[in-house]
Amino acid sequence: MRTVPLKKRLLAEFFGTASLLCAVIGSGLMAQRIRGGNDGVALLANTLATVFALYVLIETLGPVSGAHFNPLVTLVMWSKGPLARTEPAQAATFFIAFQLLGAVAGAALANAMFDLPLLHASQHVRGGWGQWLAEAVATCGLVFVILRAPPGKASALVACYIGAAYWFTASTAFANPAAVLGRMLSDSFAGIAPASALGFVLAQCVGAWGGLQLAQRLDTHPTSPETP
Amino acid sequence: MRTVPLKKRLLAEFFGTASLLCAVIGSGLMAQRIRGGNDGVALLANTLATVFALYVLIETLGPVSGAHFNPLVTLVMWSKGPLARTEPAQAATFFIAFQLLGAVAGAALANAMFDLPLLHASQHVRGGWGQWLAEAVATCGLVFVILRAPPGKASALVACYIGAAYWFTASTAFANPAAVLGRMLSDSFAGIAPASALGFVLAQCVGAWGGLQLAQRLDTHPTSPETP
Amino acid sequence: MRTVPLKKRLLAEFFGTASLLCAVIGSGLMAQRIRGGNDGVALLANTLATVFALYVLIETLGPVSGAHFNPLVTLVMWSKGPLARTEPAQAATFFIAFQLLGAVAGAALANAMFDLPLLHASQHVRGGWGQWLAEAVATCGLVFVILRAPPGKASALVACYIGAAYWFTASTAFANPAAVLGRMLSDSFAGIAPASALGFVLAQCVGAWGGLQLAQRLDTHPTSPETP
Amino acid sequence: MRTVPLKKRLLAEFFGTASLLCAVIGSGLMAQRIRGGNDGVALLANTLATVFALYVLIETLGPVSGAHFNPLVTLVMWSKGPLARTEPAQAATFFIAFQLLGAVAGAALANAMFDLPLLHASQHVRGGWGQWLAEAVATCGLVFVILRAPPGKASALVACYIGAAYWFTASTAFANPAAVLGRMLSDSFAGIAPASALGFVLAQCVGAWGGLQLAQRLDTHPTSPETP
Repeated sequence: MRTVPLKKRLLAEFFGTASLLCAVIGSGLMAQRIRGGNDGVALLANTLATVFALYVLIETLGPVSGAHFNPLVTLVMWSKGPLARTEPAQAATFFIAFQLLGAVAGAALANAMFDLPLLHASQHVRGGWGQWLAEAVATCGLVFVILRAPPGKASALVACYIGAAYWFTASTAFANPAAVLGRMLSDSFAGIAPASALGFVLAQCVGAWGGLQLAQRLDTHPTSPETP
Repeated sequence: MRTVPLKKRLLAEFFGTASLLCAVIGSGLMAQRIRGGNDGVALLANTLATVFALYVLIETLGPVSGAHFNPLVTLVMWSKGPLARTEPAQAATFFIAFQLLGAVAGAALANAMFDLPLLHASQHVRGGWGQWLAEAVATCGLVFVILRAPPGKASALVACYIGAAYWFTASTAFANPAAVLGRMLSDSFAGIAPASALGFVLAQCVGAWGGLQLAQRLDTHPTSPETP
Repeated sequence: MRTVPLKKRLLAEFFGTASLLCAVIGSGLMAQRIRGGNDGVALLANTLATVFALYVLIETLGPVSGAHFNPLVTLVMWSKGPLARTEPAQAATFFIAFQLLGAVAGAALANAMFDLPLLHASQHVRGGWGQWLAEAVATCGLVFVILRAPPGKASALVACYIGAAYWFTASTAFANPAAVLGRMLSDSFAGIAPASALGFVLAQCVGAWGGLQLAQRLDTHPTSPETP
Repeated sequence: MRTVPLKKRLLAEFFGTASLLCAVIGSGLMAQRIRGGNDGVALLANTLATVFALYVLIETLGPVSGAHFNPLVTLVMWSKGPLARTEPAQAATFFIAFQLLGAVAGAALANAMFDLPLLHASQHVRGGWGQWLAEAVATCGLVFVILRAPPGKASALVACYIGAAYWFTASTAFANPAAVLGRMLSDSFAGIAPASALGFVLAQCVGAWGGLQLAQRLDTHPTSPETP
């Protein structure tokens, strides 16, 4: 992975995050149109589309950039070891910048396909301790799954994890600051009002830290630093 | 697996059972909120979330503790051979204790995310011969699948089995005394009233014994003790 | 597979067919109860349960008996080569008998779980050229998939094929005379009236023959008998 | 793959495209009948059937013909390298002809199973910039996924990609001129009016070209021509 030029990896992060947000937001818009008044059907459809998209994107772009598509995943990867030793911290900054740009582009593309204004703010207010706890739980689980996935299975495990978390967390598991940014820019049941964004992102940061701790405590690798 | 310290394995059983129950109960609460009056949609969502969660938890925690998350699975594993010879019976008791603690913690976490009292009793009365037969069948199948799963496929097979059993058994396949405990502590369509718990657990014990018998009769390994 | 004693293989065919029919009929009964007036939701649930059950049963019982669970699959396997040379035709007769017994047992078990009379006739009349064509198409595809599945993938491919065929054929793809027998004995949307059975089975026979022809024409193995 | 006689490969493309269109159109007709007034349920069913069918068809027919089932995929494969060097361009023409014939045959078969006139025009008008953009996006993604799929994973990735794209594109992702032809010939929510076909196909051509560019820019193979 390290032999791939940085420019190509940044393109992969941009394109992957854009595709992910386009899938999340587009399927939300489609589901909102044809849910027949049943929000459960809408979230089922949104779930399936997200699960399928994540699996495909991680499989196809993982060999290029590692398929982070998520600033917190990038931070965890840089803080946790191999990447921190071989890559300058600056590269992490670029990764995050291209993820955020990708999220905006993905929202605009989804809006364009559904004949909506390219970028418009969501009205969907989300917050309160239950929702923030849910975001922390969702992100904790995501980081844990990424760090504990057996080789070659991260694509299926991350996709399935998010599919479950869409339903078992009260917040439908954004678990990704780039997803918060993208979902702010389109108004459907999958959106989030800009005023609600900060709380979600802070909760995600707490959750990511928790997931890192948990993965280290449950690490079975003999040479890894163990917390007794 | 035996080289993993017991403390770490117990943490895995606690964390895994908590996560499983959080996924089952949380998706039940979410589905109840947005099912649009259609119980079928709610159970479909509950099924998907459970299948995804089981697959992810068995893949990520299996290498740590074996990913039992179920007192009856622990008893079967200890009674059936390898673990019985290498592990003291006391360890099985600890496994079960941490599973039960995990189930309570998972229910509390789900309730907290959905702004409900941390622990409250379910009102969902379940019982009668049909339901008890269903629990015996569900647990029999689960034990059979675990014992007969080809190497490396237990995660997918257990997840898919439970996904089917949610629908083909009349009881929606609890198949796990720890799940009974956790589901007693949250009131949704996925719950079970405390007064109904004993019947379910007894039926599950019968089913687990049946699954063990069936797996032994269908064993194709030449050196295993065959029932002619 | 041939080293497994016949008695054990027959038990696997009995148990597997019973489990398959129990899953198909049980999930049909559950879906009928909670579909909320939406037949699409009911068939989606029936589909998921069947797909999951088929995958699990073929994985766990395939090494014992080959996991036919279907008289036409048994006939195709015996007529097509390896089994015909190494196994007496009498064994095929036993296979089919145990599959039919299993189908009845599976229907009775599903009925018992849902507090219905153990065996009762379905009222669901099915027939007409469209339905018969659909059964021929469904069985043709099933045989084709079984004969063309790459090694180790039959379980996933058969399960996915049936999941698709439940929806794209007008008859919801019974594709199995044992399934016809079992579904005659329980009255839900997944059932079939006894008077409609003969037409379905005849159409399935035609389809199985077609699938065998098609698989031979598309065989890419150099030493296999090719139809130029 | 190149040792398979052309006649057999064309049969595979004909049979595969017919099966794919039969699955898409048949599940659309079934879903329309039993959706209970909920278009979301109908598209969920249509999605599942298509995903399952694609996976099965690519697995079983890939070793015969490469499993294109799509004129644009054939053009991309011929223009991109190996096939262009070893196969005459004429073979590509035959591939496309048999795909189009297969699409018509698949539509006729689905109509026959549902007791409809064998071939009849869809009334479903589709068009406008949002829809055309959606088709370009859908086809771009499909070509990208095919070109970037790791060895042995194209079947799962293409199936999952289309499953996501059914929901996240505003056009439900035809992404295939042969699919446009087949869907013109049956009138359900999955159809397309003949007058709308040209716009869709042009958009798909643009998208296929874009997917080819994108895959080349993100190629990580050291010896491949890189766009710096």
